[in-house]
Amino acid sequence: MTTVASPIDRSAQSADALCAVGAEFHRRGWSLGTSSNYSLVTSRTPFRLLITASGMDKSSLTRADFVTLDEHGQQIDNHDDRAKPSAEAMLHVATARRPGVGAVLHTHSVWATTLSDLYHADGALFIEGYEMLKGLNGIKTHDHRERLEIIDNTQDIRTLAQKLTRRFDANDPALTYGFLLHKHGLYAWGRDLAEARRHIEIFEFLFEVIGRTLMLKGARTR
Amino acid sequence: MTTVASPIDRSAQSADALCAVGAEFHRRGWSLGTSSNYSLVTSRTPFRLLITASGMDKSSLTRADFVTLDEHGQQIDNHDDRAKPSAEAMLHVATARRPGVGAVLHTHSVWATTLSDLYHADGALFIEGYEMLKGLNGIKTHDHRERLEIIDNTQDIRTLAQKLTRRFDANDPALTYGFLLHKHGLYAWGRDLAEARRHIEIFEFLFEVIGRTLMLKGARTR
Amino acid sequence: MTTVASPIDRSAQSADALCAVGAEFHRRGWSLGTSSNYSLVTSRTPFRLLITASGMDKSSLTRADFVTLDEHGQQIDNHDDRAKPSAEAMLHVATARRPGVGAVLHTHSVWATTLSDLYHADGALFIEGYEMLKGLNGIKTHDHRERLEIIDNTQDIRTLAQKLTRRFDANDPALTYGFLLHKHGLYAWGRDLAEARRHIEIFEFLFEVIGRTLMLKGARTR
Amino acid sequence: MTTVASPIDRSAQSADALCAVGAEFHRRGWSLGTSSNYSLVTSRTPFRLLITASGMDKSSLTRADFVTLDEHGQQIDNHDDRAKPSAEAMLHVATARRPGVGAVLHTHSVWATTLSDLYHADGALFIEGYEMLKGLNGIKTHDHRERLEIIDNTQDIRTLAQKLTRRFDANDPALTYGFLLHKHGLYAWGRDLAEARRHIEIFEFLFEVIGRTLMLKGARTR
Repeated sequence: MTTVASPIDRSAQSADALCAVGAEFHRRGWSLGTSSNYSLVTSRTPFRLLITASGMDKSSLTRADFVTLDEHGQQIDNHDDRAKPSAEAMLHVATARRPGVGAVLHTHSVWATTLSDLYHADGALFIEGYEMLKGLNGIKTHDHRERLEIIDNTQDIRTLAQKLTRRFDANDPALTYGFLLHKHGLYAWGRDLAEARRHIEIFEFLFEVIGRTLMLKGARTR
Repeated sequence: MTTVASPIDRSAQSADALCAVGAEFHRRGWSLGTSSNYSLVTSRTPFRLLITASGMDKSSLTRADFVTLDEHGQQIDNHDDRAKPSAEAMLHVATARRPGVGAVLHTHSVWATTLSDLYHADGALFIEGYEMLKGLNGIKTHDHRERLEIIDNTQDIRTLAQKLTRRFDANDPALTYGFLLHKHGLYAWGRDLAEARRHIEIFEFLFEVIGRTLMLKGARTR
Repeated sequence: MTTVASPIDRSAQSADALCAVGAEFHRRGWSLGTSSNYSLVTSRTPFRLLITASGMDKSSLTRADFVTLDEHGQQIDNHDDRAKPSAEAMLHVATARRPGVGAVLHTHSVWATTLSDLYHADGALFIEGYEMLKGLNGIKTHDHRERLEIIDNTQDIRTLAQKLTRRFDANDPALTYGFLLHKHGLYAWGRDLAEARRHIEIFEFLFEVIGRTLMLKGARTR
Repeated sequence: MTTVASPIDRSAQSADALCAVGAEFHRRGWSLGTSSNYSLVTSRTPFRLLITASGMDKSSLTRADFVTLDEHGQQIDNHDDRAKPSAEAMLHVATARRPGVGAVLHTHSVWATTLSDLYHADGALFIEGYEMLKGLNGIKTHDHRERLEIIDNTQDIRTLAQKLTRRFDANDPALTYGFLLHKHGLYAWGRDLAEARRHIEIFEFLFEVIGRTLMLKGARTR
């Protein structure tokens, strides 16, 4: 006999898992200030997304710091005045509605912010030939070139979410694992929270490698 | 019925909160040696400021490592020989007397010290276009340019405190969130300790982004 | 009377020791994503190598996340479907079969990845004149030049393992402590786990020194 | 009535304090591999110096990992085969015999190693104008220039110890707080362990500031 968790248990467990991610990502410098949002699909039919509320300190999240949204981004929990979704929640909804996406993590690291600016004119950051790429789900060889798009930052999140939805619906291959927002941060996702966290970790590692390599190649050929 | 904390309880709780900030900031490399001071307004009328005593190791503060000052910076607690305010306490008093300031944090990080020197001739560090700026209280868009003043370092703290007081009284917009002292460190404040800590965290993040971006742009255009 | 640990106890203790290495190396940024493998010789006759299974998160290894291989790299434990050796396990077997090798650690750090690319055309990284080199077993003076080979990365691990075996059998002096794989990471080993861990730690320290020195020498002579 | 600690208690307490320093300095990256030695004067008359034994992992020191030396560097404890003083212990003895020195700490950090090489031709590293300098005992203003000598590394420690002793006896002002060994590391000391640890922490902070400033000034003027 399998024990089936009730929706309430499931939501509480999901919140606890995201609290742990928050404490870890804050410690690693990826979720400082009130930056970052994390979300988990807790039900597919009907669509339910548990997501961090707006403006929370990610180093000390509690179960009260989350809201539940439907497929239109409407808050459907019995909410009090304190916990509201942030505007960026719509980007999580747009992403998590895709088949095969179970968790979406948004982070603001030093290296992501820096590289999103340095390669902004190119429209994308290219990551090529690293063994670490094999940690992204489905990549089987280091002999791979990953294109991570850099999207202009905006406060008009609704329009951006609509654009992303159209591209997701068209299965745009540029949006397989994540994207960068210019001078803002990284969005990455996965089938479940463990995979989304791993994808964040891998991109952060590769950002630092690319940043340091660029500085050293400058130093060496000078 | 609301339980009202006694002034002694309030002071002890405030000291405990600042001890925790000290342990965290030392770990993050922002309060090494005997550097840094932290203060909290424990009463507005009469004005009472709880502040770290001079020369304490911030990694292991205890309740005995604080003094209480009045609005003139005079020590009003029953002090022993050990705990004395540092000269810089006057900068905390001058800042905390402002309406709306509940906590003042002063830190000495590598990046703050480095950028305060690099941009010293400009008189200020400009931070522009970063999403992380929205973590500063009142900033609603990344499309913002924050001017963080760089003030010459001095051992004549009394004179500097008087200058700051005049500028605070005139509501100088350059002194909204904090300032840098040249080759010395950062002062930042907030309505309460959580906001002051968040402002420090956000500035430190942005300092590192600016530093690394500058190095990388040099590397890229070489 | 000496208490002899049973093979099962020995294997469990070895797994616990490698779990601790995983937690530490993940925290230090050397084993992110699903990267890295760690192995320990648990028996010399017959040859038995305990090694991390493929694709595990190194921050939270458990005893179930290991497999045992024989001298041909064949899995000899009662394995379930979940724990399989990774392709790279053959490099561990080839290395650990050498006399005097008791533990092999493979890590993917930012500095190892970066320097493996920067010095790829040279075929090796040279480390010379550092006191820290004396932490490598057998080096008695800082006046030493260590050559750490950089081998092309490949997904054909079996062929690479055969090449390494031939070089080990010929006692190639270039393969005394470890080697780098291009844009991939570091292999290092030792008589026992403590020595292998120390060798990793020393190489990682020296990589960072070399990287920063190179950047600073560029800055200074500009 | 004052409780006087017995010599054995004193030695055990001193060892415990140095074990804690080792765990902290390893975590901060200043005592990796088998590098570093720490010593404390446990008696002035007769002179007794407790010091880490040769080759110990500083992340997990125990009371058994120390030896006691007399003013000639002779081991005077009932030693077993395992715990022997390292050759460099003579530098600790030479330093600790000076009046006013109660603790000597030797560390190997990335920044100390890097700057000791970068400024080797100058014979010294100059540190000027930083507020953090005031954490060094006796410095009252940031308007100070500290000269930290860079001494050639050698395996002939006995000769180096003799040279240092002559300079200490002559009260050489260049040896007030510490010195660097080329491509090797930092020696610093203080009246007691807390002061020596603080001096190490302050130098390490300033090394990083100097290193990053040098890189950024290069980037800015390019």
